[in-house]
Amino acid sequence: MRFELLATDPACLARRGRLSTGHGIVETPVFMPCGTQATVKTLDPRDIAAEGIALILCNTYHLFLRPGHAIVRELGGLHRFMGWDGAILTDSGGYQVLSLAPLRTITEEGVTFQSHLDGSRHLLTPETAVEIQRALGSDIAMTLDECPPHDADYEYHRASMERTARWSERCRAAHPEGGGALFGIVQGGTYPDLRARSAEATRRIGFDGFAIGGLGVGEGPDRMYTAVETTTPCLPPEAPRYLMGVGTPRDLVECIARGVDMFDCVLPTRNARNGTLFTTAGRLNIKGAAFARDQRPADPDCTCYTCRHFSRAYLRHLYVANEILGLRLNTIHNLHYYAGLMRGARQTIEAGTFAAWRQEILARMQPAPSPEPVTEESQVDG
Amino acid sequence: MRFELLATDPACLARRGRLSTGHGIVETPVFMPCGTQATVKTLDPRDIAAEGIALILCNTYHLFLRPGHAIVRELGGLHRFMGWDGAILTDSGGYQVLSLAPLRTITEEGVTFQSHLDGSRHLLTPETAVEIQRALGSDIAMTLDECPPHDADYEYHRASMERTARWSERCRAAHPEGGGALFGIVQGGTYPDLRARSAEATRRIGFDGFAIGGLGVGEGPDRMYTAVETTTPCLPPEAPRYLMGVGTPRDLVECIARGVDMFDCVLPTRNARNGTLFTTAGRLNIKGAAFARDQRPADPDCTCYTCRHFSRAYLRHLYVANEILGLRLNTIHNLHYYAGLMRGARQTIEAGTFAAWRQEILARMQPAPSPEPVTEESQVDG
Repeated sequence: MRFELLATDPACLARRGRLSTGHGIVETPVFMPCGTQATVKTLDPRDIAAEGIALILCNTYHLFLRPGHAIVRELGGLHRFMGWDGAILTDSGGYQVLSLAPLRTITEEGVTFQSHLDGSRHLLTPETAVEIQRALGSDIAMTLDECPPHDADYEYHRASMERTARWSERCRAAHPEGGGALFGIVQGGTYPDLRARSAEATRRIGFDGFAIGGLGVGEGPDRMYTAVETTTPCLPPEAPRYLMGVGTPRDLVECIARGVDMFDCVLPTRNARNGTLFTTAGRLNIKGAAFARDQRPADPDCTCYTCRHFSRAYLRHLYVANEILGLRLNTIHNLHYYAGLMRGARQTIEAGTFAAWRQEILARMQPAPSPEPVTEESQVDG
Repeated sequence: MRFELLATDPACLARRGRLSTGHGIVETPVFMPCGTQATVKTLDPRDIAAEGIALILCNTYHLFLRPGHAIVRELGGLHRFMGWDGAILTDSGGYQVLSLAPLRTITEEGVTFQSHLDGSRHLLTPETAVEIQRALGSDIAMTLDECPPHDADYEYHRASMERTARWSERCRAAHPEGGGALFGIVQGGTYPDLRARSAEATRRIGFDGFAIGGLGVGEGPDRMYTAVETTTPCLPPEAPRYLMGVGTPRDLVECIARGVDMFDCVLPTRNARNGTLFTTAGRLNIKGAAFARDQRPADPDCTCYTCRHFSRAYLRHLYVANEILGLRLNTIHNLHYYAGLMRGARQTIEAGTFAAWRQEILARMQPAPSPEPVTEESQVDG
């Protein structure tokens, strides 16, 4: 994997870059949709590519349990298995496994956990996290880290961050040469000194890219933005930076301005399945009775397949009638919105007009949108 | 609507025809997928068109209840509402309403029923059945008929068939000139004399096409085939013939041989969602553990999107993991199979080789496949 820095904004930390992977070029800033169980829920690979998406995220925890990484390897790896020619980043499984509390135990060796599917017991270590991701054959693998609760105290964050650093070293050692890219993860909660120390430790070990973990977990947008702007200056400028599990459209714009290159989040896909659409005029809940006779597309300014062909009235009908097509049309729209947002950021950083674009786009958004409550699925279900 | 008879088979009653509708040309014999609630479940209009499908069926009962025919009319009709440029046939709602027993009452006026959604009471008459279908704006509307239980006695079938004839007259009278095509329905169970009388009465009233109703409801394939071959000779050769709610691939081949031009059935779409795939080598239940490592496509002889891009192992994974994409990929495959079967019939009738094709295709099918049990949805849910 190669990363080129093509442009930086003169007024903020925003960067325009290009990742070259074994499965194509990825222009950054980039948002990765979640393909949790080897499918971006409701979409086929054509749908994903049609939105100009070149990189998706798949979840190691889910694929380890089902169908199993050995089977995926036997079937030629994740790309072939799911018919996706673009690039794939896999997480380490750590985040999902830790969210299984109390059905998991953290030790220095790794995390012992019980499957949410059948209760079977497993041990995830830095070494097995790397091994599973190699079997899956992702283009970018992540180290095993601990993501502490946002309200854990300083001492917990310090000890956890130090263990994450030791786990990072073990991942680095377990990761073979030429085995795709490996990203390290910086932890430390919202404590600037811990973030700086974690960044330093991770940087010293040496990785192809650097992730900022442990944010977007309840600390609120302002503390998150501060933590991000504290961390990115501690990271090597020549490597890509990935803010894990974030976030809302506003979060993306604000964190691009603070030097982040990559994002992933279930928000656009999960909200789509809950009937919430992101539009240039804010969020729209398609379930509303007000849309029953509304002939307009979800977003009159949008050029996605859904908005070019279907009315709000039809989308509402599909939602109310529990029709699967509605979930897919909503997902296409939301990913188009997110992809368009990233395209806007890239173009304006390149043109040197990012600051004005940022101001304009944030002004059009509703104030401080909070994440949609998870109504259908647990964290583990992606 | 215009119907041209292009060729007939020298050895049996098979016909090759062409329907010209206000929404395109439909080559017959044709199978119509069910677009019950204004969507062929899991598919978008591009998917349907990609399988060469030019005509789909939508259900009046469902659309009357939700979103309501007045809303569909206000939104420009069903084609515009669902973004489908091809032709649409609507049923009268009678079949679904009658299946609501005991929540319905049949009188000479029509059928009083309670909605399966909210228990609200409604009256469906020949006149309202036509009115609702006109509001939906389908290319082909159906008359209101009674479809008796297959094991009803002769006397019930006789009286019911006579009422269906009276309802047909009322539908004909209520249907405006230039208001699209209207098909009459022949009833009479498996009694040849009742079928002949019903055909004669329906023919006398005069319709753009003639449907054979009341079959495929439990009487078994052999009695169904006999009833069909008793009925088609009583119908005018210059009009299309539609066997309602049928059937398996074998049923389609056997009934084409007996002079049927049009079919509809939930079988390929519903079975797809239950994990059953139709292949040139018979049915395949994708849930099976035997497919966990199977790299082959569902049907190695198939050229559909699903078979060109995905393995049985992946389809099984999607099914087992409750991923929506699996339902859609299975549906695409099954409709491709059905569309291919119809194409094979059309080509061989035209070439005069239908008899040999029929023999070969039936030999390759598993013996007497029975309809998949309805596990997910009631009859009413389409």
